[in-house]
Amino acid sequence: MNLRLVFYLLGLITLLIGGAMAFSLPWAFVQDSYEWKGFFGLFTSVILCLLSGGGLIGWGFSSRMDTLYRKEAMAVVGLSWVLATILGALPFLLSGTCRDAVRDESGEIVRDTQGGIPMENRIPMNMADALFESQSGFSTTGATVLTAIAEPQLVPRCILFWRSSTHFLGGLGIMVLFVAILGQGSAGKALMRNEMPGPTKETGHARTQDAAWKFAFIYAGMNAVLTGILWLEGMTLFDASCHAFGTMATGGFSTYDASLGHFDANPWIDSTVLLFMFIAGMNFTLVYWFLIGQPMIMLKDTEWRGYVAILLLASIGVIFFGYTRGDFKEEGLLGAIRYGTFQVVSVMTTTGFGTHDFDSWNSFGRGLLFLLMFVGGCAGSTGGGIKVIRHLLFFKILWLEIEKAFHPSVVRPLRISGKPVEDQQLRHHILVYFSLVLAIFVMSWLLLVTVEPSTTWTAKEDPLQNKLIDCATAVSATLNNIGPGLGTIGATRNYAHFSWWGKLIFTWLMMLGRLELFVMLVLFVPAFWRNQM
Amino acid sequence: MNLRLVFYLLGLITLLIGGAMAFSLPWAFVQDSYEWKGFFGLFTSVILCLLSGGGLIGWGFSSRMDTLYRKEAMAVVGLSWVLATILGALPFLLSGTCRDAVRDESGEIVRDTQGGIPMENRIPMNMADALFESQSGFSTTGATVLTAIAEPQLVPRCILFWRSSTHFLGGLGIMVLFVAILGQGSAGKALMRNEMPGPTKETGHARTQDAAWKFAFIYAGMNAVLTGILWLEGMTLFDASCHAFGTMATGGFSTYDASLGHFDANPWIDSTVLLFMFIAGMNFTLVYWFLIGQPMIMLKDTEWRGYVAILLLASIGVIFFGYTRGDFKEEGLLGAIRYGTFQVVSVMTTTGFGTHDFDSWNSFGRGLLFLLMFVGGCAGSTGGGIKVIRHLLFFKILWLEIEKAFHPSVVRPLRISGKPVEDQQLRHHILVYFSLVLAIFVMSWLLLVTVEPSTTWTAKEDPLQNKLIDCATAVSATLNNIGPGLGTIGATRNYAHFSWWGKLIFTWLMMLGRLELFVMLVLFVPAFWRNQM
Repeated sequence: MNLRLVFYLLGLITLLIGGAMAFSLPWAFVQDSYEWKGFFGLFTSVILCLLSGGGLIGWGFSSRMDTLYRKEAMAVVGLSWVLATILGALPFLLSGTCRDAVRDESGEIVRDTQGGIPMENRIPMNMADALFESQSGFSTTGATVLTAIAEPQLVPRCILFWRSSTHFLGGLGIMVLFVAILGQGSAGKALMRNEMPGPTKETGHARTQDAAWKFAFIYAGMNAVLTGILWLEGMTLFDASCHAFGTMATGGFSTYDASLGHFDANPWIDSTVLLFMFIAGMNFTLVYWFLIGQPMIMLKDTEWRGYVAILLLASIGVIFFGYTRGDFKEEGLLGAIRYGTFQVVSVMTTTGFGTHDFDSWNSFGRGLLFLLMFVGGCAGSTGGGIKVIRHLLFFKILWLEIEKAFHPSVVRPLRISGKPVEDQQLRHHILVYFSLVLAIFVMSWLLLVTVEPSTTWTAKEDPLQNKLIDCATAVSATLNNIGPGLGTIGATRNYAHFSWWGKLIFTWLMMLGRLELFVMLVLFVPAFWRNQM
Repeated sequence: MNLRLVFYLLGLITLLIGGAMAFSLPWAFVQDSYEWKGFFGLFTSVILCLLSGGGLIGWGFSSRMDTLYRKEAMAVVGLSWVLATILGALPFLLSGTCRDAVRDESGEIVRDTQGGIPMENRIPMNMADALFESQSGFSTTGATVLTAIAEPQLVPRCILFWRSSTHFLGGLGIMVLFVAILGQGSAGKALMRNEMPGPTKETGHARTQDAAWKFAFIYAGMNAVLTGILWLEGMTLFDASCHAFGTMATGGFSTYDASLGHFDANPWIDSTVLLFMFIAGMNFTLVYWFLIGQPMIMLKDTEWRGYVAILLLASIGVIFFGYTRGDFKEEGLLGAIRYGTFQVVSVMTTTGFGTHDFDSWNSFGRGLLFLLMFVGGCAGSTGGGIKVIRHLLFFKILWLEIEKAFHPSVVRPLRISGKPVEDQQLRHHILVYFSLVLAIFVMSWLLLVTVEPSTTWTAKEDPLQNKLIDCATAVSATLNNIGPGLGTIGATRNYAHFSWWGKLIFTWLMMLGRLELFVMLVLFVPAFWRNQM
């Protein structure tokens, strides 16, 4: 392992994060009152990033021209995510951002006569909170521990902007990663269906870089367009850009406790977000083809069709059962369509914005949303989860296996869109991926059930019997990078009341899910760090 | 597909079942009062078996000497299980066996002055009940819809004996099946570790038949021995044989509503059952080696070691968390050890006897028992579940895959007990099996949540919020052939209050799990029934 080269690259990433952090600084000034604490926290964090980035670069400078082998590349990706989590947590800690404040019996924050929140009543974020929030941002999960987001005395606006910026950076990172590194392996290529932008089939270094730039450009452009539209629809520029970051990265951080439900009076806003969530969950290769005027490539794509079909079927199911079983008594059929579709798209694309309390829905709706968490977006999107294409292949593989049980000698090829997939490893890779998700899900669930004290439920008057299912949805919502789950972490709740250990488990799961498992898992294999190739 | 040959073999099996049914007839006479309804039901069922068996044999007689190909063998196994379920349900229906009777506010059965239960108050089993109960017996699940088992006016003793006999037959069937048919495939052989009784390695037809007879003999002998011991320990001969059937088949049908907890005052009884459940969950090849005086083969076996290790670790966990979190307040530490160990062994071997209400345990204990359901017994035992050896291989395979992520060119062989497993298909087979279990579990869960009305919970004052987790445990408890689950089907409850559709789903799942998925799944592939080989 060429550690110097790894450090050099990590140093570059550290500088990049520090630079991105500086963009949040202006928001300390444009609010009603100057946010000195937020500014101080952000500014100090930027300085720390520059210093540590410089240090890392200095340490590894002599190796900067060495060849980047597979192991080093994996180490850089894995460690950069760890590093980003720690750096991203600094502004929360250094600014003294508060998770919540003491509340009275009716659940309102206790204030003095001028509406201020007494210092001694404020509950600052601890280290686990900050790491959780930072990782939730970078992994585009959108789970939060902040219980009074809209209160500037507890959460400075500039810090809130940084929080949403981590979504933007995380989403950008995924776009680049997919093309530049993860898309290199044979299985990765098959998952991307060898359809990089451009008509030729050669996949050299220049092509990869070119594609990464194109994707980053489309991604940034879509963020800008969505910000503009939301601004025109009545949001402030601050809210518009934060929600655009949350949408295009399929993140889900909002600037209000009610999430996107804050803008319930304006159906244009959630329709717009719905559309862009849908786009963000698509393979960006297809978005590229669509934008250059070739929509047929998108319409003929197997994964895209599967993605649309699952969204449609799930929405119909949720609307039907929701309407007939009285989940939308006040909102009627139109409301069922509006909120049902939104929640299905929000959960399946792993965004996690909320406009309706789906935790109070009927069991079918709740169960279906739980399963949709594992479906996720398309390969090559910013969405999390297992990805649609893996599910399509998974069920095709199982069907072929059932046929093989009585025809052991007949080997049928695996086909996508009628074309056989040549890659023999793909079949194996898909099964391994599902198996790993299963193993990680089950072990994390039992671990969480064990370490999380019962008081997390009893103190909030949640039924303790729900601990098993709540923990299952919490693991799923973090591993698949959604955000909200069921019960104690339901649509109207958050992760603030979990223990230190619970939050660290979630932080780990978000990272694991975001990087599609392997990159994080290999860091724990001793042989990975040994020198031989 | 040579249907005539299939019918001929099914006819033989039908006669066999009819014959076995006749053994329950004497129990109609040995009770306090002659059970004419039970006798009538059983006798008519025996006649129907003989008639239909004769018919099937007659139909297929001309093809009786044809070669049995793989497809026909699979069809016979799958269809014989369907047939057995239907035939086994006849005595329940024809005898008018009752699921329950009208109860007063305190939950007691309403009786007339002589202690009789008025005819109009009795709730007879419907067709779904009878199929469920029959399949639960043959698949050695032990889930029941009978709410007043110990009440002879509702459940005739001879019918109860038939119910437990189905466990014996099911267990015997599995022993024979494993050796004679399912153990033939390469993956099947690898799972049985090529260690058929006897020192030579040739695996001809005679060897297979020989092994099947040996296994059947050991199985029947153990049933007899256990019956004797339980009888000596104070059970009646009736109870002793029924519980022996339930134990050795890892079934779990009892003759009391409190299950084995009825004999709580006598710790010898549950210690004996504990030991024999442990043996029943072992590979019968190892039991054979042990009985002929070669215990070292057992002690050195990887799967056996894994089996013991999981049981020990799980017991320690359940005892520790159960004791420290107050699940055994009345029973103390000794009680925690007694009941904790019993429940762990009972659930993991997929027997499902109950001596303690584990549904009221802490979340760790409940969650762990849920996971143990999927572990199951060893390959070549009567236990259900995924089997210990598959789990050991599963985790080894995943570990190798993580290593392969950074060393793609290095292919490490899969080893059991240090010896590489040559069979290249085994790795694939294990992953496919876990994937199929996952897919079936998830789809059945959502289906059950959808079709089962909420009143199944609300009518019994169970929290509706528990529907998701209760349904998950119900699917697991039937697919893995355990019996009890959590919540509304918890240790002190049963499946009586589920709907027709729910019970039919469970019946299907028990069958599917018992035959290790493939044999039942292929029946639904149209190509399976076509004539070409």
